[in-house]
Amino acid sequence: MSNIKALDKLVAQFTKLPGVGAKTAQRFAYRIVNMSEAEAREFAQAILDAKEDVHYCSVCGGYTDKDVCDICAKRDKSVICVVKEPKDVVAMEKTKDFDGVYHVLHGTLNPLLGIGPDDIRIKELLGRLDGVKEVIMATNPDVDGEATAVYIARLIKPMGIKVTKIASGISIGSDIEYADEVTLSRALQDRKPI
Amino acid sequence: MSNIKALDKLVAQFTKLPGVGAKTAQRFAYRIVNMSEAEAREFAQAILDAKEDVHYCSVCGGYTDKDVCDICAKRDKSVICVVKEPKDVVAMEKTKDFDGVYHVLHGTLNPLLGIGPDDIRIKELLGRLDGVKEVIMATNPDVDGEATAVYIARLIKPMGIKVTKIASGISIGSDIEYADEVTLSRALQDRKPI
Repeated sequence: MSNIKALDKLVAQFTKLPGVGAKTAQRFAYRIVNMSEAEAREFAQAILDAKEDVHYCSVCGGYTDKDVCDICAKRDKSVICVVKEPKDVVAMEKTKDFDGVYHVLHGTLNPLLGIGPDDIRIKELLGRLDGVKEVIMATNPDVDGEATAVYIARLIKPMGIKVTKIASGISIGSDIEYADEVTLSRALQDRKPI
Repeated sequence: MSNIKALDKLVAQFTKLPGVGAKTAQRFAYRIVNMSEAEAREFAQAILDAKEDVHYCSVCGGYTDKDVCDICAKRDKSVICVVKEPKDVVAMEKTKDFDGVYHVLHGTLNPLLGIGPDDIRIKELLGRLDGVKEVIMATNPDVDGEATAVYIARLIKPMGIKVTKIASGISIGSDIEYADEVTLSRALQDRKPI
């Protein structure tokens, strides 16, 4: 593209990032080239550090830089919120409304792709249920996520543990006019007295 | 944000890239964490290599990984295209329609910001005019770019060198309906016989 090997290589690296095309990657690469030596070094080091320090918590499977994450170490273990991916933990934490612990499945059931119960962290969840009062399913409201939630609920309910699911419905601040019909129909079904 | 130092640091680095906000930076950081060790190392190395290898050509001021860039070394030196920034060279080169050399000003005149003729590479341009037949001004069609083009033209024309400016007008493939009035008025002024 530019005939400058190191520049083209960096552009190629940036296109690996989600949603980054050739033009954006090129703008990113120019930004790096225009940085000071120290800034560029700091950037590269941040990548290496993140890759080296950040791994999965040995209990919940979320991101941490320790063996057991702060959430697992300090919080109420009687309520477990089950999510698909480590980044869902970060999203849930932003609400500041949950003081239980998490369990990251690292995937959802998908028979078409050959992802069965043994391929995601269901066994690990079952091993954590001692003393647990409630399991909140917070998988994505799509086919795989719902199927996974139902599958896990069927395993856990017989143990006398309450299993709930986070609500689906219209996003706060959005327009009913623009909501898709599936969401709207679900919101109608799950209507609450006011 | 996530309570994981290395992750937050990487997110902060990504927000330095143009047009990247906190959410996008977070998605980028997750992508890095999910890379293999080798991939992350390659990414970091590409940043270091680009910063180390890519610098300005000692003749034209464009990006290169040599002392004198390939364009300056190999092409017709009798036509010089003057641009504002190194990335403008890359943009012009994509046309494949120009076989002369470039001169990068590294800025344009801007009295309000205190950027005068000595702050951009005008002196260097004047030192390259021996044997030059034409200087093409390809600065941006904004106030600073136009002023710079006129300023340089006034310096060079008395030497008997032809000075031209790339055309402004409606973008190819765009709608006249959506063109701004300044562009449209310029396109009208610069109309050509067909």
